[in-house]
Amino acid sequence: MSTQTGRTGADLKLIDAYWRAANYLSAGQIYLLDNPLLSTPLEAANIKPRLLGHWGTTPGLNFVYAHLNRVIKQREAEVLFITGPGHGGPALLANTWLEGTYSETYAEVPQDARGMAKLFRQFSFPGGVPSHVAPEVPGSIHEGGELGYSLAHAFGAAFDNPDLVVACVIGDGEAETGPLAASWHANKFLDPAQDGAVLPILHLNGYKIANPALLARIPHEELDSLLRGYGYAPVYVEGHEPEAMHAAMAEALDEVFDAIEKIQAKARSGEDTTRPAWPMIVLRSPKGWTGPSEVDGVQVEGTWRSHQVPLSGVRDNPEHLRMLEQWLRSYRPEELFDANGAPVPELGELVPPGHLRMGATPHANGGTLLRDLRMPALSEHAVDVPEHGGSTSEPTRVLGQLLRDVVELNDAQRNFRLFGPDETASNRLDAVYQVTGKQWQGETLPADDHLVRAGRVVEVLSEHLCQGFLEGYLLTGRHGLFNCYEAFTHIVDSMFNQHAKWLGTHRKLGWRRPIASLNYLLSSHVWRQDHNGFSHQDPGFIDHVMNKKAEVVRVYLPPDTNTLLSVADHCLRSRDYVNVVVAGKNQTPDWLGPQEAALHCARGLGIWEWASNDDGVEEPDVVMACAGDAPTVEVMAAVSLLREHLPSLRVRVVNVVDLMRLQPESEHPHGLSDREFDAIFTTDRPVLFAYHGYPWLIHRLTYRRTNHHNIHVRGYKEEGTTTTPFDMLVLNDMDRYRLVMDVIDRVPGLGPRTARLRQLMTDQRTRHHGWIREHGEDLPEVRDWSWRS
Amino acid sequence: MSTQTGRTGADLKLIDAYWRAANYLSAGQIYLLDNPLLSTPLEAANIKPRLLGHWGTTPGLNFVYAHLNRVIKQREAEVLFITGPGHGGPALLANTWLEGTYSETYAEVPQDARGMAKLFRQFSFPGGVPSHVAPEVPGSIHEGGELGYSLAHAFGAAFDNPDLVVACVIGDGEAETGPLAASWHANKFLDPAQDGAVLPILHLNGYKIANPALLARIPHEELDSLLRGYGYAPVYVEGHEPEAMHAAMAEALDEVFDAIEKIQAKARSGEDTTRPAWPMIVLRSPKGWTGPSEVDGVQVEGTWRSHQVPLSGVRDNPEHLRMLEQWLRSYRPEELFDANGAPVPELGELVPPGHLRMGATPHANGGTLLRDLRMPALSEHAVDVPEHGGSTSEPTRVLGQLLRDVVELNDAQRNFRLFGPDETASNRLDAVYQVTGKQWQGETLPADDHLVRAGRVVEVLSEHLCQGFLEGYLLTGRHGLFNCYEAFTHIVDSMFNQHAKWLGTHRKLGWRRPIASLNYLLSSHVWRQDHNGFSHQDPGFIDHVMNKKAEVVRVYLPPDTNTLLSVADHCLRSRDYVNVVVAGKNQTPDWLGPQEAALHCARGLGIWEWASNDDGVEEPDVVMACAGDAPTVEVMAAVSLLREHLPSLRVRVVNVVDLMRLQPESEHPHGLSDREFDAIFTTDRPVLFAYHGYPWLIHRLTYRRTNHHNIHVRGYKEEGTTTTPFDMLVLNDMDRYRLVMDVIDRVPGLGPRTARLRQLMTDQRTRHHGWIREHGEDLPEVRDWSWRS
Repeated sequence: MSTQTGRTGADLKLIDAYWRAANYLSAGQIYLLDNPLLSTPLEAANIKPRLLGHWGTTPGLNFVYAHLNRVIKQREAEVLFITGPGHGGPALLANTWLEGTYSETYAEVPQDARGMAKLFRQFSFPGGVPSHVAPEVPGSIHEGGELGYSLAHAFGAAFDNPDLVVACVIGDGEAETGPLAASWHANKFLDPAQDGAVLPILHLNGYKIANPALLARIPHEELDSLLRGYGYAPVYVEGHEPEAMHAAMAEALDEVFDAIEKIQAKARSGEDTTRPAWPMIVLRSPKGWTGPSEVDGVQVEGTWRSHQVPLSGVRDNPEHLRMLEQWLRSYRPEELFDANGAPVPELGELVPPGHLRMGATPHANGGTLLRDLRMPALSEHAVDVPEHGGSTSEPTRVLGQLLRDVVELNDAQRNFRLFGPDETASNRLDAVYQVTGKQWQGETLPADDHLVRAGRVVEVLSEHLCQGFLEGYLLTGRHGLFNCYEAFTHIVDSMFNQHAKWLGTHRKLGWRRPIASLNYLLSSHVWRQDHNGFSHQDPGFIDHVMNKKAEVVRVYLPPDTNTLLSVADHCLRSRDYVNVVVAGKNQTPDWLGPQEAALHCARGLGIWEWASNDDGVEEPDVVMACAGDAPTVEVMAAVSLLREHLPSLRVRVVNVVDLMRLQPESEHPHGLSDREFDAIFTTDRPVLFAYHGYPWLIHRLTYRRTNHHNIHVRGYKEEGTTTTPFDMLVLNDMDRYRLVMDVIDRVPGLGPRTARLRQLMTDQRTRHHGWIREHGEDLPEVRDWSWRS
Repeated sequence: MSTQTGRTGADLKLIDAYWRAANYLSAGQIYLLDNPLLSTPLEAANIKPRLLGHWGTTPGLNFVYAHLNRVIKQREAEVLFITGPGHGGPALLANTWLEGTYSETYAEVPQDARGMAKLFRQFSFPGGVPSHVAPEVPGSIHEGGELGYSLAHAFGAAFDNPDLVVACVIGDGEAETGPLAASWHANKFLDPAQDGAVLPILHLNGYKIANPALLARIPHEELDSLLRGYGYAPVYVEGHEPEAMHAAMAEALDEVFDAIEKIQAKARSGEDTTRPAWPMIVLRSPKGWTGPSEVDGVQVEGTWRSHQVPLSGVRDNPEHLRMLEQWLRSYRPEELFDANGAPVPELGELVPPGHLRMGATPHANGGTLLRDLRMPALSEHAVDVPEHGGSTSEPTRVLGQLLRDVVELNDAQRNFRLFGPDETASNRLDAVYQVTGKQWQGETLPADDHLVRAGRVVEVLSEHLCQGFLEGYLLTGRHGLFNCYEAFTHIVDSMFNQHAKWLGTHRKLGWRRPIASLNYLLSSHVWRQDHNGFSHQDPGFIDHVMNKKAEVVRVYLPPDTNTLLSVADHCLRSRDYVNVVVAGKNQTPDWLGPQEAALHCARGLGIWEWASNDDGVEEPDVVMACAGDAPTVEVMAAVSLLREHLPSLRVRVVNVVDLMRLQPESEHPHGLSDREFDAIFTTDRPVLFAYHGYPWLIHRLTYRRTNHHNIHVRGYKEEGTTTTPFDMLVLNDMDRYRLVMDVIDRVPGLGPRTARLRQLMTDQRTRHHGWIREHGEDLPEVRDWSWRS
């Protein structure tokens, strides 16, 4: 097709009208309580009492949206729009209403005067919609609340969507953030043959809240050099005069869409498989464009003063009221909306058909596209456990074999990916490389391993990018897993927050279909970062996650290989959750056979009768509870010692896989009833709880339980350094000897017979400590220990 | 001086010898348990049983360090070395030992064979030192555990240190992280006239753990374009042949130091005040350089396989043992160390004198340079409170006036800065602009506000950069404050972790002097993000902070202006803590006068007798506790209602400023004794606790207290949207009416007279809800409410 098609004067006039309509609808949302069509002169009573919202970025977003409509229609292109700038709510609400998708999603906001009034009133209004793009906005997968993740989301959406162009508007404010700055390099991963395209549109409107934006204040050559250095071919659209800007933008969009088509055609025909310089657009336009130029003698349009509400106090300031009316009428609403308030038919000519409307793209409602993962039979991967604890295996290594099969079984669907910060092999998931590789478009050298043009694994040393890619991938209807060193998952605390909040809202919207859960595999965890030292030891991501809505979050601590497989299988099949799975990569005793593991995980926690000697009926003398692989080993070792030295002590062993089971049922859907909890943890016996993370979390979860005052928790109390695995346990008082001493201290009536045992335990700790300091490694009896009931 | 001086063949030979010595010492640390000088043939028994450590990055770091020594000596330059690559421990330990600073710091590791043996043995060994650069390493302000913060630390260190050059080696792995990617742009802030210089040395050794590094795998032109786009003038040192590399590096360093001198001279003479293109170095050298080239038939040097330990199983594999000996002897240790194991005198010729040795720079032990802040009298800023709650003020606005004076009083010392992500004015601290501005070297336009070349405020829309700058600034002996929207402080969760861990270790090292605390001001908090909506509502940073060592962390929730001033004054004077202060910016009742506020803050929590009617002696019927400004208002309003409707009810009001007071004294140095706690919270009366954040934190802190089962907490339970401030309280059941209902529900024996009151409260909630939904704002009676006792 000719690149000139669709760029006649009439075409650009239509775009301008559409833009004016969107600008009118945007300003209306910020200001108007009623009188949406200005059918009568504007009065103070028509104005919202509390003026909230952000005008500054809005006209630029409207400009891009209108122009994309033209290209979509002309080329029948499939485009997903991502709104990076923070407060772009009015623009996306205006545009989706204008194209009809808003009213299709929300019948109560029709395309007429009544609907327009509702659209205006609901904006930033109690009971209404937020000022950011949010889950409520049709066509969106990206919350505009916290800044910096738009481009990572865009790339995540483009993976395995070869026919999709993700147009990502990047605000010059968010461009200063770390995650965004790192995201530019995502083009070193995107495969032009099998993935879609990302079109970054860097919107330089010059200002943030109160400051100029960095990228708007470097010389053109420097900016150009930077963007080329990132690997893009930038096209510039700069100015403020609408007519010239429409022509420039239309030309630029044709140029970049042509370039994308060319790149993809070459790559897909095999003509050129090298990494292309993807096109991008730099749009430099005034902040608050077309809004009031000057207010009270100071410049507003084109400055930071237009960031939020350019005209304030409109209800009380007649001059401002007059200026507002003049501003609104400058868009000539009477040409844009008919007497009933519906957009005039001419505007409809710019609206793409059906699902090509950006507000209607199924990619932004990923659940509609979601296909179940084909899962291998767990039995093919489960380890044989003829005897509880009689053998060992590396849980994540076996999980890697399961994941290899998941990759293979879903190869045709192309809807599963693993993301990780250079740690997939270190976390021992490397079996996946038997069937796939790490996607990579950078230069390669002979010593490189497992790098491929198109692969199911994406590794980049940025937890932000891993998380952002995965979110974008999931929100567009696919499946995935993020594997990460436990301590460094905190890097994405804030991204997790936003995704959990998104899911919380998403779940309440009937029209949004369930999407695959976001699955974290936290390995290389606190108890086995002995060699990497204090900086690598932090089990607090679990605590962080627990602050979010109970409906959304799940935390699993499988104690061995078969339970990890069962948990992983469950998580990969689940929907609309964030699942946090903490699992070790080191040799771990196989406690449960496949069926037992499945049952135990289904229950979430339970008494291990085979490890207990309370005969299941009587109340035990003590409950030894554990959650996590390392704590489970120590509890089992302590129980062995108790068997040997205090054989008459009745010990009940409880293992917790699903941490949420500990909470009251009123607090979490997985919570145990008090009756069940009491039956397991008793109402009056001492409970020693060895927990993977910070001990107080267990108290937080159980403080309402009958027997809470008897629960004594051991866990990581921020003691650590470069040492051995067993010394880590000793430093944090969670080693087997300490646990035995805890039992001695807590079980009443054990009497003098325990004095010698206590001394023996102390001696053991001293002996280990000495050995470790001398030899630099643990005593073989710790490493080769195995459970004997 | 001529740039050729010091680059003769002999000079380079010396550098090579020094480099070989450092490489020998580095490899020795990874492998040797004893026989440090290889005085006898290497035996299996000389080898550590557990081989830990990272060789890959080490020779490159040693190379840079040796070359910097030459430049420092030649120019008498003051250089601070920052080790960005993750596992550079061996290099910095080797170099500080070689230059003598290690032995001066740790007399037990002298510069002889015994000391060398100790240096080797302690590395990554239980009871020894970590494999990363850590607080234990002299000359360091940067932990090499988590990646991405080196360059931000470097810029923070360079601010207000005009004579300092911060040489920052950036690993190509960490260069992929978001925070590092954003940090390049810090050159838009650094003032060449009044600040020091940062010399980024991008070390491209090509690989991370298992993958190539992005920046090592883009074409030279693209890399060059990127770095120029970041605003630098890169100088390239590329190769692997030592002789040529030494010549190139020496030349490059002279070139960049010349360029820095020139830039500074021009700026300081006023000749050129525009932003310069700062020089930087790109060092492209093989990973694991000079280590084993091939092992077991595969290439190791120059590949990811040399990331950690190039030769494994050395104890059991005679061939590997032989290769290790050959490798170690390739450095010709007999030429480098005398018979006693001391470095030969020739090597000393490369060591800079005294404090110019990078391991001895006082900037890396900032406490030695720390000067107390000059603080204004609080009385000059305190608000007059003739009547408790009889007036209102905006706490952070008044704090801004205090900070303005702090800026002014310390103008000559140049040792105080404010950092914030574009929110200093939004958080209402803008009084500081009366005496200073926002430091900025980008282009300026007439509409810009408060931008100056040199100013005490640094604003960049990256919480990572704000935190990183502040950390670098504090660690080099200065003071500062980071103001941030509360919800988005989570962005730096992981950075906080690392700083808190650093402080935890730093405090244990006698030779490290106390530094100024890291002060967070979290404003625009959850209860006043009603207008920005759900994505902006998260009070969980407090929870996150609480997981770290009690000695290090402090959390304050001042309820009004005078308490905020008192807390801020205390925090700015404090040392070695992380202080988190949560304070509102909106009009808030002034509860306490200046003296009362000082006393209340000194106590940390206390009974507000003037608001209570339990007469101070008898046990009250109910304790109404509050922590945080919004909860305090609601509790006071609820107490007003109780006074009116249940005048005979004896209510005790307790306000908590210092959250740590709630913990047992065994858990935190600020913890109240049980006796004190019981005296305030009673042992058996209902306690209603209105808390700023997630309610379970209060349970976590108090679960061991006698009266814990009677404590009922209201707080933010993740209910929020775009609405009004009062509606936020209602949504989370912390509004005054709900609190009154809670009292009715919890105080025994109130009887039937409360049925009508309960109904009234319900009606009030309904009335407010209706009004808010209709008018979009709170009822005036909520906004204009004031306390009457």
